[in-house]
Amino acid sequence: VSRPQLSIIKIGGKIISDKPLLSIFFDSFKKIEGPKILIHGGGRKATEIAALLGIKTKMHEGRRITTAETLEVVTMVYAGLINKNIVSAMQAKGIEAIGLSGADGNLIEAVKRPVKEIDFGFVGNVVHVNTKLLHTLIQADFVPVVCPLTHSNKGQLLNTNADTITNKIAEAMSQDFDVRVRYCFEYNGVLRDMKDPDSIITQVTPDLAKHFIADGTFTDGMLPKLQNAFEALHNGAKYVSICGIEQVHELQPGTQIVIP
Amino acid sequence: VSRPQLSIIKIGGKIISDKPLLSIFFDSFKKIEGPKILIHGGGRKATEIAALLGIKTKMHEGRRITTAETLEVVTMVYAGLINKNIVSAMQAKGIEAIGLSGADGNLIEAVKRPVKEIDFGFVGNVVHVNTKLLHTLIQADFVPVVCPLTHSNKGQLLNTNADTITNKIAEAMSQDFDVRVRYCFEYNGVLRDMKDPDSIITQVTPDLAKHFIADGTFTDGMLPKLQNAFEALHNGAKYVSICGIEQVHELQPGTQIVIP
Repeated sequence: VSRPQLSIIKIGGKIISDKPLLSIFFDSFKKIEGPKILIHGGGRKATEIAALLGIKTKMHEGRRITTAETLEVVTMVYAGLINKNIVSAMQAKGIEAIGLSGADGNLIEAVKRPVKEIDFGFVGNVVHVNTKLLHTLIQADFVPVVCPLTHSNKGQLLNTNADTITNKIAEAMSQDFDVRVRYCFEYNGVLRDMKDPDSIITQVTPDLAKHFIADGTFTDGMLPKLQNAFEALHNGAKYVSICGIEQVHELQPGTQIVIP
Repeated sequence: VSRPQLSIIKIGGKIISDKPLLSIFFDSFKKIEGPKILIHGGGRKATEIAALLGIKTKMHEGRRITTAETLEVVTMVYAGLINKNIVSAMQAKGIEAIGLSGADGNLIEAVKRPVKEIDFGFVGNVVHVNTKLLHTLIQADFVPVVCPLTHSNKGQLLNTNADTITNKIAEAMSQDFDVRVRYCFEYNGVLRDMKDPDSIITQVTPDLAKHFIADGTFTDGMLPKLQNAFEALHNGAKYVSICGIEQVHELQPGTQIVIP
């Protein structure tokens, strides 16, 4: 039985902060046929606004430690400044965008991450995605634009990584759709040589990933991206790729992530 | 022909900043039967955050002058900090809230206020309310929670007074609903004597308002509230009242605004 398709696109920090890049991205995003969801990060801008407010940003292995003060900042920046500017820019392009956090319509329930060696503060581990609101909006031809905030459903907002949110939404929506996940970034795919933007690897399997990690081709920035991409496939997504901002509407853009 | 009822409730700054008051308000709000929309302000918090960022707040006759910097602050505070904390707190009470700005779903189109004697900056005069998103959400039993931002539909967010947004949404939704507007504040109605919280006037007509303005009973803070309330009636609302936080679910709470 053929199921309807759903495209889930994730955009990261460098694109978000650059209006001309965003505009190019939206032109490609608009061409995606069928229902689609956009998920965005915003860590760079949060760090910037925190600094202006005199709040120091502490990270542990690339993850933000979210104090009560930091939570206020990310709530302002992710759900306010970034989300509404993106929605407004998309509307200007004729895309029926509507911005959401994980609290809206109880979209993403999470629990505060248990304290082990590190206290991450108000960071949420996702426990459940309620798809009712997404279904309602998609059915009415709206395009949900989701920022990386979740909530406890007991009144506590929580900070959750945008890639994690992408994967959890992909997993939940895979119940009803053939989900295509695209992680969109500043290169046109995963590169064999970071100095050569044309050295795109068209397919990455787990074995190939291991090989390129071992020989040092894939380094720091690419590792969590690949991990998330493989996770999305494991969790039910039909098709996962890492691609550039002008390619999200293409049938097979950038680097396809494959489990043979 | 009997039409469905819709309750539109506006809450202002003093309630928003006070968690115990908000909690009392939500308990009353939850008891309202049928479809409902909440609209909130947030000027006090915006002024506070602006000050922390070293941005001076300039007002003209009670209206905020919105520079590019101030627009960033109100976008963060209204759509982010306040809206998402309200939505999260409502969800914790079992209310299916979903937060919106005027950019989401192209809800409220506005034009930048023309510069006359005063340049108000990025302030929006409402030109159109698109009710499609509100209808979609209400039909699916969600409760829209609207913050006081509009947009140009050409990519520009704009700052618009929450009372104005209340009236414009009331006007637009009056096409399909019998709309009840309730302006909710820290007193249980319009007072004859500001020192006596029990001196509630049960009905205010335009003649009575003129009388009480002339003799000094109604002063500063009450005048724009009354003006907005009469405007809402003129624009198509069936029933308008000014009431307290524990009363919004009552049939005839506080002070009813009447045009005989």
